[in-house]
Amino acid sequence: MCQLLGMNCNTPTDIIFSFEGFHRRGGLTDHHADGWGIAFFEGKGCRLFLDDKPSIESPVAALVRQYPIKSENVIAHIRKATQGVVNLANTHPFMREMWGQYWIFAHNGNLDNFAPPPGSHYNPVGGTDSERAFCYILEALRQKWSQPPSVEELFSEVSKLAEELHAKGVFNFMLSNGELLFAHCSTKLHYIVRQAPFPTAHLVDDDVTVDFSTVTTPRDRVAVIATVPLTDNEHWTALAPGQLTLFRDGAPLLTATAPPAATR
Amino acid sequence: MCQLLGMNCNTPTDIIFSFEGFHRRGGLTDHHADGWGIAFFEGKGCRLFLDDKPSIESPVAALVRQYPIKSENVIAHIRKATQGVVNLANTHPFMREMWGQYWIFAHNGNLDNFAPPPGSHYNPVGGTDSERAFCYILEALRQKWSQPPSVEELFSEVSKLAEELHAKGVFNFMLSNGELLFAHCSTKLHYIVRQAPFPTAHLVDDDVTVDFSTVTTPRDRVAVIATVPLTDNEHWTALAPGQLTLFRDGAPLLTATAPPAATR
Repeated sequence: MCQLLGMNCNTPTDIIFSFEGFHRRGGLTDHHADGWGIAFFEGKGCRLFLDDKPSIESPVAALVRQYPIKSENVIAHIRKATQGVVNLANTHPFMREMWGQYWIFAHNGNLDNFAPPPGSHYNPVGGTDSERAFCYILEALRQKWSQPPSVEELFSEVSKLAEELHAKGVFNFMLSNGELLFAHCSTKLHYIVRQAPFPTAHLVDDDVTVDFSTVTTPRDRVAVIATVPLTDNEHWTALAPGQLTLFRDGAPLLTATAPPAATR
Repeated sequence: MCQLLGMNCNTPTDIIFSFEGFHRRGGLTDHHADGWGIAFFEGKGCRLFLDDKPSIESPVAALVRQYPIKSENVIAHIRKATQGVVNLANTHPFMREMWGQYWIFAHNGNLDNFAPPPGSHYNPVGGTDSERAFCYILEALRQKWSQPPSVEELFSEVSKLAEELHAKGVFNFMLSNGELLFAHCSTKLHYIVRQAPFPTAHLVDDDVTVDFSTVTTPRDRVAVIATVPLTDNEHWTALAPGQLTLFRDGAPLLTATAPPAATR
């Protein structure tokens, strides 16, 4: 399956350290070599870099590693294709506009036989279950609200939709509108919140260490979410299967956990 | 005002030569230094590179200059801000999904007092007249058809919408879904079709020459559309004010020209 990486911060932060380890999983330290992508929100705007080459040999990944784009919300994905051929239209993350906001989505997992009817507002371009799920979620939210609801109402509805899709297969995902970042665990997802006093962190995938205290201010707070922990000397928190956590300003804000399927 | 560049081909082609001259207009040979962007369709997928730095000093432009992305449809834009601050959300081209296809739009001009009501399907994220116009066009097309119409029906409707917006100000634009490329001239737009026997071309903005016969096959056909001709030893065709031309497979397919405003 694929690898997910997300970052949610209270101040624009670059993701170079985390991406340094993460991109190695696309063909070097792991076998997720069917393309990759990364989305950076900057204010209301969003940059989406996609490449159907493995991230370890992608010129676009080389750019991202060298260009310190500062962002409050980032979602990255390295693909191991389960449904849909390897091409650009099937490369995550996916982007759509809803309520005058860009929304970004990436999925790690597999939904069997998930073929929702065509949406009135959102339809997939490629052939993945992931993009179908993204369009299904946005369609449901947009049908319910023509303007953005409160964060609590939105969380409640995304939670219901996540539970519904989690019941159809494996559905780890991240979803962001540039302010909020939803992270849903179906099988495997971890996060860490870094804040003062900042640690020195060491990558799992490469022998690289960074002392965050030298590149931060005392008020900075950064949540990093990843399929598998990226560092080997920090404590990462595992999300439980069925858990949806909403991050804002670099910290968890709301959490809900669906009951295991057997008890439903 | 801004600079537009488009390419429509019958076979995936890289735009490195044209982009070499074009990107210099973003801060070096011209003063369009308020960000830039380029969209490459690859099949149904689309890569959209945006940067709010001037293209002449942009690391993303350096990538695009070095990475020969082969595409059948490209739209690029260098911005000189007229409405909307300089930030990523206001950087062209803009992207939306309609009918399960990505649509890309870039605009050179200025529409005064253009404030359409919120769309049911499409709404702007940033603060430009350009993105409002894009959403207005897509909203009208999507309200009229829930599935893609014929090329002739689509052309006729885009032509009406272009004429309507052209009457509100300056409205040079390009619009593509990865197969079709619409180019509308309000004040200034030129194109050239390159096909066998291929010429040797020399850039206006830099002392660079390329012999296309060495990098093409006899059946290749490429239309390049630009605000101002990019080469100084080829014959570029000027579009007339009010002219909309639809390109497909590297050649003009349909053309319509609105009557001058005074005769309407």
